[in-house]
Amino acid sequence: MKTRDRILETTLRLFNEEGTAKVPTNRIAVELEMSPGNLYYHFRKKEQLVERLLRRLEDQAEPLLAPSNTQLVAVDDLWLFLHLAFEKMFEYRFLYRDVDYVMSEYPRLTPRLRRLTSRGIETIERLCGQMAAAGTLRANSSEIEVLALQMMLAATCWFTFARMLPENVDTGPGRAAYQVLSLLTPFLADDGRQYVNYLRRKYIA
Amino acid sequence: MKTRDRILETTLRLFNEEGTAKVPTNRIAVELEMSPGNLYYHFRKKEQLVERLLRRLEDQAEPLLAPSNTQLVAVDDLWLFLHLAFEKMFEYRFLYRDVDYVMSEYPRLTPRLRRLTSRGIETIERLCGQMAAAGTLRANSSEIEVLALQMMLAATCWFTFARMLPENVDTGPGRAAYQVLSLLTPFLADDGRQYVNYLRRKYIA
Repeated sequence: MKTRDRILETTLRLFNEEGTAKVPTNRIAVELEMSPGNLYYHFRKKEQLVERLLRRLEDQAEPLLAPSNTQLVAVDDLWLFLHLAFEKMFEYRFLYRDVDYVMSEYPRLTPRLRRLTSRGIETIERLCGQMAAAGTLRANSSEIEVLALQMMLAATCWFTFARMLPENVDTGPGRAAYQVLSLLTPFLADDGRQYVNYLRRKYIA
Repeated sequence: MKTRDRILETTLRLFNEEGTAKVPTNRIAVELEMSPGNLYYHFRKKEQLVERLLRRLEDQAEPLLAPSNTQLVAVDDLWLFLHLAFEKMFEYRFLYRDVDYVMSEYPRLTPRLRRLTSRGIETIERLCGQMAAAGTLRANSSEIEVLALQMMLAATCWFTFARMLPENVDTGPGRAAYQVLSLLTPFLADDGRQYVNYLRRKYIA
């Protein structure tokens, strides 16, 4: 692995585990058994590390967010999309959990984080719209608007909310995706509901 | 106003506006035009300020969370409850927005924050259960369980999520309560839906 990638991997892990505010660059250098000067050679400021990690997330989210030629019309397509999106957000969860710190320390990144959120909402609206057009989802456009905002809220804030739940509750990405998918249940036709119930048995013990 | 109350009011405002992590006790003393020694006389550590503010929230939330003899069975009763709960959470929003910092710095407070969340979920489940028993809400117990968790997630995380939305979106407590109430729409009888649509016109321009 290249040094830059090794630095980013370790930074990502420390930000996720210990919190963005609490990890200075010196701590990252120590963890990597690297001199502060060597780290400085690759990344001059903590902001550059955060920025580069955000760019990675943007790049990796792109295939999920880009409109594809494939029409997703079944519940399990949407389920797969949500599961993949949650896994990606979980991987970069420091950006969501520490959003207040990131936005106030690095205001230049704020528009990019907002754009990622807006595109997520648009993508969910598009997928739900396709399902509605195919008759898989029985919801009008104003219902889809509320749903998409709510799903994005749950997606971005799940890992913050999870901290407030009792410790014995499963709060992993699969459970999160199930919770979000459940929002669709009342709008689904019978076979869709059955599929959500099948998923339910997998995630809720 | 008593000195202790004046200190708590100012602390609450600074925590909400600037973030719990960024406001040391010296900053609070300066804002109050008070000597650090005088502040220390009333509150020896920042943890005591956070603890006392949490206790205030617990006390003020109690009337909302306690089961009452009045059965709430109409949508506008639930709406009023949600609106009051959101206003209270907005008043103490630093606790929710900075939950990661608060829980890691003051682990003694973690069980109390979790308990407040659990009681909120239970209260929503109870109110929805009453509405279901009265026929106002058409949802079974597992649907109510998912709904209550989702409503609490939206309630606790709204002010974090709001930061990720475009700046022109109204993100105040009323808009938040409307968004949460909208989750109920598919389960409501016709007059309930009409009421939510009436609220919608008030909050969504």
